[in-house]
Amino acid sequence: MTDPTRTLGVAVVGYSFMGRAHSNAWRNVGAFYPGVPQVRMQTLVGRDEAKVGQAAAELGWAGTATDWRSLLDRDDIDIIDVCTPGHLHAEVALAALKAGKHVLVEKPLANSVAECEELVAAAAASSSRSLLGFNYRRVPALALARELVRDGRIGTVQEARISYLQDWLSDPQAPMTWRLRKETAGSGVLGDLGSHAVDQLHYLLGEHVTQASGTLRTFVPQRPGPDGTEAVTVDDAAWATLHTASGVVASLEVSRVATGRKNALAIELYGTTGSLRFDLERLNELVLTEAGDARTAGASTILVTEPEHPYVEAWWPAGHVLGWDHTFTSQAADFLRAIATDDPVHATFEDGLAAQRVLAAIEASHARGGTLTDTGN
Amino acid sequence: MTDPTRTLGVAVVGYSFMGRAHSNAWRNVGAFYPGVPQVRMQTLVGRDEAKVGQAAAELGWAGTATDWRSLLDRDDIDIIDVCTPGHLHAEVALAALKAGKHVLVEKPLANSVAECEELVAAAAASSSRSLLGFNYRRVPALALARELVRDGRIGTVQEARISYLQDWLSDPQAPMTWRLRKETAGSGVLGDLGSHAVDQLHYLLGEHVTQASGTLRTFVPQRPGPDGTEAVTVDDAAWATLHTASGVVASLEVSRVATGRKNALAIELYGTTGSLRFDLERLNELVLTEAGDARTAGASTILVTEPEHPYVEAWWPAGHVLGWDHTFTSQAADFLRAIATDDPVHATFEDGLAAQRVLAAIEASHARGGTLTDTGN
Amino acid sequence: MTDPTRTLGVAVVGYSFMGRAHSNAWRNVGAFYPGVPQVRMQTLVGRDEAKVGQAAAELGWAGTATDWRSLLDRDDIDIIDVCTPGHLHAEVALAALKAGKHVLVEKPLANSVAECEELVAAAAASSSRSLLGFNYRRVPALALARELVRDGRIGTVQEARISYLQDWLSDPQAPMTWRLRKETAGSGVLGDLGSHAVDQLHYLLGEHVTQASGTLRTFVPQRPGPDGTEAVTVDDAAWATLHTASGVVASLEVSRVATGRKNALAIELYGTTGSLRFDLERLNELVLTEAGDARTAGASTILVTEPEHPYVEAWWPAGHVLGWDHTFTSQAADFLRAIATDDPVHATFEDGLAAQRVLAAIEASHARGGTLTDTGN
Amino acid sequence: MTDPTRTLGVAVVGYSFMGRAHSNAWRNVGAFYPGVPQVRMQTLVGRDEAKVGQAAAELGWAGTATDWRSLLDRDDIDIIDVCTPGHLHAEVALAALKAGKHVLVEKPLANSVAECEELVAAAAASSSRSLLGFNYRRVPALALARELVRDGRIGTVQEARISYLQDWLSDPQAPMTWRLRKETAGSGVLGDLGSHAVDQLHYLLGEHVTQASGTLRTFVPQRPGPDGTEAVTVDDAAWATLHTASGVVASLEVSRVATGRKNALAIELYGTTGSLRFDLERLNELVLTEAGDARTAGASTILVTEPEHPYVEAWWPAGHVLGWDHTFTSQAADFLRAIATDDPVHATFEDGLAAQRVLAAIEASHARGGTLTDTGN
Repeated sequence: MTDPTRTLGVAVVGYSFMGRAHSNAWRNVGAFYPGVPQVRMQTLVGRDEAKVGQAAAELGWAGTATDWRSLLDRDDIDIIDVCTPGHLHAEVALAALKAGKHVLVEKPLANSVAECEELVAAAAASSSRSLLGFNYRRVPALALARELVRDGRIGTVQEARISYLQDWLSDPQAPMTWRLRKETAGSGVLGDLGSHAVDQLHYLLGEHVTQASGTLRTFVPQRPGPDGTEAVTVDDAAWATLHTASGVVASLEVSRVATGRKNALAIELYGTTGSLRFDLERLNELVLTEAGDARTAGASTILVTEPEHPYVEAWWPAGHVLGWDHTFTSQAADFLRAIATDDPVHATFEDGLAAQRVLAAIEASHARGGTLTDTGN
Repeated sequence: MTDPTRTLGVAVVGYSFMGRAHSNAWRNVGAFYPGVPQVRMQTLVGRDEAKVGQAAAELGWAGTATDWRSLLDRDDIDIIDVCTPGHLHAEVALAALKAGKHVLVEKPLANSVAECEELVAAAAASSSRSLLGFNYRRVPALALARELVRDGRIGTVQEARISYLQDWLSDPQAPMTWRLRKETAGSGVLGDLGSHAVDQLHYLLGEHVTQASGTLRTFVPQRPGPDGTEAVTVDDAAWATLHTASGVVASLEVSRVATGRKNALAIELYGTTGSLRFDLERLNELVLTEAGDARTAGASTILVTEPEHPYVEAWWPAGHVLGWDHTFTSQAADFLRAIATDDPVHATFEDGLAAQRVLAAIEASHARGGTLTDTGN
Repeated sequence: MTDPTRTLGVAVVGYSFMGRAHSNAWRNVGAFYPGVPQVRMQTLVGRDEAKVGQAAAELGWAGTATDWRSLLDRDDIDIIDVCTPGHLHAEVALAALKAGKHVLVEKPLANSVAECEELVAAAAASSSRSLLGFNYRRVPALALARELVRDGRIGTVQEARISYLQDWLSDPQAPMTWRLRKETAGSGVLGDLGSHAVDQLHYLLGEHVTQASGTLRTFVPQRPGPDGTEAVTVDDAAWATLHTASGVVASLEVSRVATGRKNALAIELYGTTGSLRFDLERLNELVLTEAGDARTAGASTILVTEPEHPYVEAWWPAGHVLGWDHTFTSQAADFLRAIATDDPVHATFEDGLAAQRVLAAIEASHARGGTLTDTGN
Repeated sequence: MTDPTRTLGVAVVGYSFMGRAHSNAWRNVGAFYPGVPQVRMQTLVGRDEAKVGQAAAELGWAGTATDWRSLLDRDDIDIIDVCTPGHLHAEVALAALKAGKHVLVEKPLANSVAECEELVAAAAASSSRSLLGFNYRRVPALALARELVRDGRIGTVQEARISYLQDWLSDPQAPMTWRLRKETAGSGVLGDLGSHAVDQLHYLLGEHVTQASGTLRTFVPQRPGPDGTEAVTVDDAAWATLHTASGVVASLEVSRVATGRKNALAIELYGTTGSLRFDLERLNELVLTEAGDARTAGASTILVTEPEHPYVEAWWPAGHVLGWDHTFTSQAADFLRAIATDDPVHATFEDGLAAQRVLAAIEASHARGGTLTDTGN
């Protein structure tokens, strides 16, 4: 257990989209969560010295480094926050754990089940704390949904529907990028959005997917690239039917060609006495239906901005809605609190492994014509 | 009291929009409400013999007449249903009552307070039954709202918001019609849509508006007519603040220039412990909010299609939505049941008078610069 | 071609839910669609003489019969409308076609592919007109969606999502009924709601599903019956991934345990330049998104009540919403028009066969662990 | 003009709700708007030394002061940001302007028209920059609405509807607070929420309200206080009809007793060719309706999170929604940019005066029974 009064030095590795979102969290966590250990924004890491210097100045970092290895034996760094592309997560996180640093890894944990297993073993063997950045677990509406499911408020869940739809590839003329090459991206939409979706299922249901049947599709097999037409080697969309240990059946659909959907993570949980619905594009709302008096039963839209709601008391008065980035600040607060108390904190690396196993099973099922496949969870 | 096993002969006067809607009700009432007296669709009345003949053939009438007076001494006519333009309501209805017929009058009861008072007196003096066709009282969601208010489900109502918005005059080049001349229409949007809105306030709150402050506006004072530009002599939109005997304050807004609103009667009632919301463009839904556990209180959208809901059992299974015209059939059923039982039935002619007094007070207030004006209710 | 000025005699076989909905259509079709051949509501058929007699009186039929075979050689019957349970459709419809009657069959066409094939052959061999009652094809919003897809308004469709969710079996204590026994119902929710869903896909896309991968689930394997606990032998929910000839991938989900969903047929079509969404619980609305100027592109909720919209001109002015039952009246009108003109009319028996083949392929896929299965379409 | 490369020292006066929201803005403005002058968070001011010290530590301030006057002659303070209660705004802001500081004042500008006029004169006479914190002008959806109105996208606006509803006084037993006493609060909901609403009208329409007719109501005239029952001396709700110079008529309704409404600023603008709708509880959305092809015209929900939308490029990728607090950061950025460039910046103190005049006219109208009253704008 870390002395809760000690200020912790933080380094973030990476300064693009996710590095920026995590920097925002470290900059604000003290203002909204004054009860957790304080942090110093010590070092921002990036390979390009000029660019990382400018980013550090904008984002509020005290210094920079161009090699993440230089962090490992520094006494002023307590937490290493890994925001690199996914295929580098494992290397950085393993080294950081070995060096006795607390480690936060942006999702997905890694691009393969094998790497995830290695990370889980390393975390288990370490006395440091580790956290996987499935930030949507800190959306107040989803944290409330988790509480309501756990409390039995909708009875026994039987059926779930989860989809995560975007549209930036709808246009067949949208150009080639590194995200559409298997060697750089590892996977297409399944790994990118599917990992969030599967983790939410695990989180909300409190159990794992044990079997999966799935299909992948690349609607546009070739796209214009810098050197002429180039083959797209990852999936544009994926579908799966998932089964949990207790018997819940969940449908999963993820897409980058769903025209008009910008960031639409939509979740529906149907239990024996009630149901829950959520849409990330309206992230302050949760819809609860409870069977009961047929005359007044309805689908109740809860504006999840009351002090009684998870995380909300840290922020603003009732009715003052939060945005996407607030989830990262709450995540940082939970991690800092866990460092000070040794209490559990999620998502764990095990959660990351469990999600990766489901994605791998979906790919395996697709390769076998859609047949039901064990996930290993 | 009429013998409930006797089949009642019906005549409708008028065969345009409202005559058609009422004919539809008479044609269907027996199928959905088998417990009420049966009807014979005896006579459709209209001045143009050829046109009324064709309408009667289409709509299912046994015969036609070109003069409504011919109905008065016919033994095969028990009910006269007045669907003429509003300025003719009083003459027909008074004669019908005098002749001992049961009378249904399409809203508004009449175009002036004086005519309404005369009709109220005639109805009170008659042993016939009378009904005013404020059909929205038979929207299941609004009937449910009425029940919930009466049961105290939202506590004491303090504030109400009611608007009825359409857009067929948004375009300043929309042509002149008889509905925009005071001599033919009596009034503009205030009389047309405002009468529905005020009646709903009276119905839902169970009390009358006693004071009103109001404003009228004609946004487009001249429109192209058949003989060149012509002055518009009625209001395009109207606003009022209304006060009831018990202290509720209601805002009213009606318009024909609300671009994008087709038939948007929107109602909000705010009570000390809950609130209700309704929108006619989604007439199968009622939104109920109840203060309570702050963690799960929300705005609950009730799909008002359950057998437990008012009027619904007569129709289809749960989830099979109703449309606008079903309200007229339920209205006819209520009238027939009242004829057979002597039980009360609403809307009464008194209800029509009460609404007309509010509209008159709004006009009077406008003429006096918006000052608060007693309605006489 | 039938003489369009001749009044056609109609008989409906069956007087429960669907018989009532079809009777309503025959009673009203002349009032809203005066241009099609007129009908006489001649005979309502049911085995229980007293009950069918009462139903006929309520619903407006001139007479009754207790044996549908008695209709076959009657000259006053031109149309036989089959509203029996599904396992009797084939026998009645085949006999009616053979007797030279025009035949309308309520969906599904039959409970097996073999029966459907027999009916298709009989219809092809007959000079009578036939129609399959997939009534949702006459929801104005869905007919508009069909037009927009056909016109290329959303580009090339790539991905579709269709679900039909109800909740009357959410409660594990809900009792056993004939609908939960395979021998009487043929199938569970897949046949019941899935047939509507698959037909909508075929209708909206204008092409057939050629391959399917599917899963069925009975969440509550035993329910309380009249003689104690009894095994449920049909599915409570089903999931499938469907592929069309042109390469569209569609997800399908149907359920009777989706707590809070009453009659929720939800459709989403994603094309290369736009998308469409529909929900039967708000059947007057269609949501259209078109890629375009990023600054003002949005999801546009069209209130499908304008005279420019399919079927609407027959009904009421703009903004006066329709209900579920109006679809049957429009369906009857289309059938009558087709009888008079020999123009094509849908849904054809071929459409029914195509849908049944998809359902059969889903069941076959389920039996083989979810592997992709050809539909034969 | 200030040297744009110089880092500006900021002091905020007040550390409760608004002081916290403004501190959040100063802490984050550099990260999201790197192009504007940099700031040093120099001093947080509050009367209680211990409390302001703790707040400063949490919120990221370098130091504290207990008397705002001590800021006036400090060279390290360039900007004074006034977040005190409204009745202190004028004194602090006037002194700050006189001392040559740039001044940001949280809304409302002041509690009286006279004080507002004094502030306008002082700002005009000063070479410092001043800004009034009507933060909703930086909601991207409202800034987009402003652009669309200005571009004529909805034609000529004729009718507006604006309401701002909360419910923290719905319960008649809710206790007395300083906000319900005229001597401390100046006004009730009219001044509090009404000022936001009126400013939005002025902002969106680009013109001022010139005449007003209004009503105020205190539904619960006495509430439980610390020393027994105490009279409520401010309004719980207010209604007004407002007229602009060009002839727009706007309805205004503000309330603290609208059960179920948490922070519901709802705006509707109806123009001759289109309309716009907004609800602060869904602040990332704007609904645009454009008259046009009747077949596909609808109410289009724009998710205002694209780089093409005002302010959004500073934040996150498309589909990543913003919250309430982001508006203050964008406001700070606009102010800093204006300081560096001498370009105009809004809301000006004139805007604050214009809004205050409308509120005063509504109160005056109420005192005269609702008669139409000139605002002086």
